[in-house]
Amino acid sequence: MAYTGKELRSTATEDGRLRLALEEVTLDAPGADEVIVRVEAAPINPSDLGLLLGPADVASMAQADGGLSFDIPESRRGGVRARLGQSLPVGNEGAGTVVAAGENARALEGKRVGMLGGGMYTQFRKLKTRDVVPLPEGASAADGASMFVNPLTALGFVETMRMEGHKAIVHTAAASNLGQMLQKICLADGVPLVNVVRSEEQAAILRDIGATHVLNSKDADFRQRLTDAIAATEATIAFDAIGGGSLGSDIVQAMEQAANRNMKEYSRYGSNSFKQLYIYGALDLAPTTLNRLAFGFQWSVGGWLLTPFMQKAGGEVVGRMRQRVVDELTTTFASRYTRTIGLAEALDPEVLRAYERKATGEKYLIDPSR
Amino acid sequence: MAYTGKELRSTATEDGRLRLALEEVTLDAPGADEVIVRVEAAPINPSDLGLLLGPADVASMAQADGGLSFDIPESRRGGVRARLGQSLPVGNEGAGTVVAAGENARALEGKRVGMLGGGMYTQFRKLKTRDVVPLPEGASAADGASMFVNPLTALGFVETMRMEGHKAIVHTAAASNLGQMLQKICLADGVPLVNVVRSEEQAAILRDIGATHVLNSKDADFRQRLTDAIAATEATIAFDAIGGGSLGSDIVQAMEQAANRNMKEYSRYGSNSFKQLYIYGALDLAPTTLNRLAFGFQWSVGGWLLTPFMQKAGGEVVGRMRQRVVDELTTTFASRYTRTIGLAEALDPEVLRAYERKATGEKYLIDPSR
Repeated sequence: MAYTGKELRSTATEDGRLRLALEEVTLDAPGADEVIVRVEAAPINPSDLGLLLGPADVASMAQADGGLSFDIPESRRGGVRARLGQSLPVGNEGAGTVVAAGENARALEGKRVGMLGGGMYTQFRKLKTRDVVPLPEGASAADGASMFVNPLTALGFVETMRMEGHKAIVHTAAASNLGQMLQKICLADGVPLVNVVRSEEQAAILRDIGATHVLNSKDADFRQRLTDAIAATEATIAFDAIGGGSLGSDIVQAMEQAANRNMKEYSRYGSNSFKQLYIYGALDLAPTTLNRLAFGFQWSVGGWLLTPFMQKAGGEVVGRMRQRVVDELTTTFASRYTRTIGLAEALDPEVLRAYERKATGEKYLIDPSR
Repeated sequence: MAYTGKELRSTATEDGRLRLALEEVTLDAPGADEVIVRVEAAPINPSDLGLLLGPADVASMAQADGGLSFDIPESRRGGVRARLGQSLPVGNEGAGTVVAAGENARALEGKRVGMLGGGMYTQFRKLKTRDVVPLPEGASAADGASMFVNPLTALGFVETMRMEGHKAIVHTAAASNLGQMLQKICLADGVPLVNVVRSEEQAAILRDIGATHVLNSKDADFRQRLTDAIAATEATIAFDAIGGGSLGSDIVQAMEQAANRNMKEYSRYGSNSFKQLYIYGALDLAPTTLNRLAFGFQWSVGGWLLTPFMQKAGGEVVGRMRQRVVDELTTTFASRYTRTIGLAEALDPEVLRAYERKATGEKYLIDPSR
């Protein structure tokens, strides 16, 4: 039996346009170790928007051939060269019900599962059994839709901190779903966490779940308070979702100032405290500015991405992380969604503008089975 | 017997001034494992200027109390907070003749030695014997004056490349004394090196010693040629002496583009090629700009400094590096000086402006025994 359904596709073209459209896709029968899942919930994460819209200018949105079309500004076209002309499926993760299973996967038939593997903004998705995880009894598709990216990233931050010998963490855009998970993990594991947010409303979200250190970067005394919080926690690693501008730099500088408070002798090369900033998101697309003269020489800034982290951490660590997500799916790793939309609605200009805004506390879920 | 002499000191003060002056210093007799050296040659390295002048505004130079005085611009005062009010000796390395030796150091008496340890812009310097190295027969003080910082840094780059699993190097400000040493080492060791310079004159210096890849960042097609050279050498590590602006970012971007040429499938997270940029100097004091959206996520930018590198590399590696410097002191590690000045001349405004300019091929040597 074949399964036919709609799938959301994103295509960047030679003439500097990006096109979104629904295409019809037909899946043939699953192989021995494969399943076909009817997708019932797939979140729109910031990382999904990166592939869906890439560097397109949302203000240039136009309807075209039943889909949407955008300009890609000249200056940003370098980044899409490698995907030109390819119709790319979108959506890192999701959840749904197994509707067909290969001979080694019969036990999954009819089960509700969470899935990782891309191309989730689709009605039917064929996957290897190793890429699906059965949800606990009673969990809805919405409960399982975000069980990979945010939970494993938040757990990965804490693992990275330990692997690289740090004692406490600074996190930006900290009131996000991911940030709330991280705060819950840190509370449970006794890891000091300095949360940086951009509004009082966001600060309140974190205080409500028990956060001690919550700083609003809009406050006049932000830098002073950041240095104080870093000195108090001895945080020497930061995870930054924003990327653009100088907030990451300000954090490294505050770490250096906190370290200098304890130095007995002046060194023009700065403190011996090694300071690590990882950039894992791009809420701000502007270039990153590093005021490195205030860092000393013991610092590193780099990209952090879940997949290479998991490869480095190895199967045992990842297995333990995955099990914790299943065990705490509706507590530590609960996601809140502000709105659920169908596949066609994702291409409604009004709706697209809303989920593209990435406003705090706003999170969209696509239900392609609607 | 006590040795009394003049010593150059740099002091940053609470009122935002930086003062240079000669002070009289008296050394008492050396301990058992110590020597007193009459300093006969000490280079002015860019790293020395960092301590000597710090972030002072050279245009504001004024003569005061037999020394010189400068403004420190408001915006740069943060970096000197930790040294305020301290009269700091300057000069990382030098060479001279042992004029007094403790009981365990008699063999060094009368010997010409190279020295590391700071405070070399002085007439007499007391040091532990482990911080001096006897020069080979016939070597002058000028030959031995720069046997630590540049040679060990150049060797350290190649060691870092190997330790971190890279195959080839990109180097900026590549026509410097350090850059010429690095090119000679890479030729001897068979390590591909991409040299980035800022003029045709600099390019010629490197070609004369056998460099294959020499790129002028002022050329219109620089970025294209950089990507080609990186693709040809498979360089994934860069050492940048400039620091400010976007040249380092351009190099990482070229590394990513070179890696993308070999990619079969598009990934919005970029290539799997890990790209490392180390900033080891500050020829440009401006902030570092990273156009990280063009890097993918597999990248790191960090500070590189000789002392922590040697601590990490360990005694065996450092011993091997030091021996190579002694063995190749007047070949691979020969430094050229354009002018030798006395201690008092270092405080002549005309002379200071000249050595502060850090023009390529210009290198000053201080001979405090004059």
